[in-house]
Amino acid sequence: MSRVDNLNRILRGLQTGSPDVEASALISEDGLMIASALPQHVDDTRVAGMTATLSSLGARAASELERGTVQEVLVRGEHGYAVMLASGSGTLLLALASKQAKLGLLFLDMRRAADDIRKVL
Amino acid sequence: MSRVDNLNRILRGLQTGSPDVEASALISEDGLMIASALPQHVDDTRVAGMTATLSSLGARAASELERGTVQEVLVRGEHGYAVMLASGSGTLLLALASKQAKLGLLFLDMRRAADDIRKVL
Repeated sequence: MSRVDNLNRILRGLQTGSPDVEASALISEDGLMIASALPQHVDDTRVAGMTATLSSLGARAASELERGTVQEVLVRGEHGYAVMLASGSGTLLLALASKQAKLGLLFLDMRRAADDIRKVL
Repeated sequence: MSRVDNLNRILRGLQTGSPDVEASALISEDGLMIASALPQHVDDTRVAGMTATLSSLGARAASELERGTVQEVLVRGEHGYAVMLASGSGTLLLALASKQAKLGLLFLDMRRAADDIRKVL
């Protein structure tokens, strides 16, 4: 199994594990897609760019507000959550979840997936 | 009691209610401080500007990632949390909490404070 196959397997696992996870993607810090499990109508490039921007602003906010190195950024909108976390080697794991999602479970699953990603990269 | 006194009381209440909340502030969407309970060494202007930037990027991310109108943005750094939520009339409530903070309790207290702020504004 190639590295990309392994990464895709981890992303799919994140989505099959919690039905509230609608999409997930692994993105480089400079905003390029590495692997993704996104719905067809979603534009890869836009998601990748937005995730990297969110991460760099999160890093600046964490530093300015004396919170240290950024580890996770969460945006809750009226239709659900966008969660981004650092997954090692300069990569970002993004998950989009519905508003019914249990946030504690989502963080748990994402941290596990990030650990698995670190082993593959 | 003036409106500003009331707002300061709500912010102080947020901090006395949970010892893990280190600072809180109420900021206008355009990045101006309305009321604050920040430690002395923290620069008001910088915090206000950073909160407004975080909110506007959160709004863009929520919209691009199809999450609807932004309601909350959370940044977790290695030293703790920065949480921002919309508190009505174009204002943003920011809380800075230590890494020991219980996130569920923090959101609960902040949502209550935001409801109180809405009544005052």
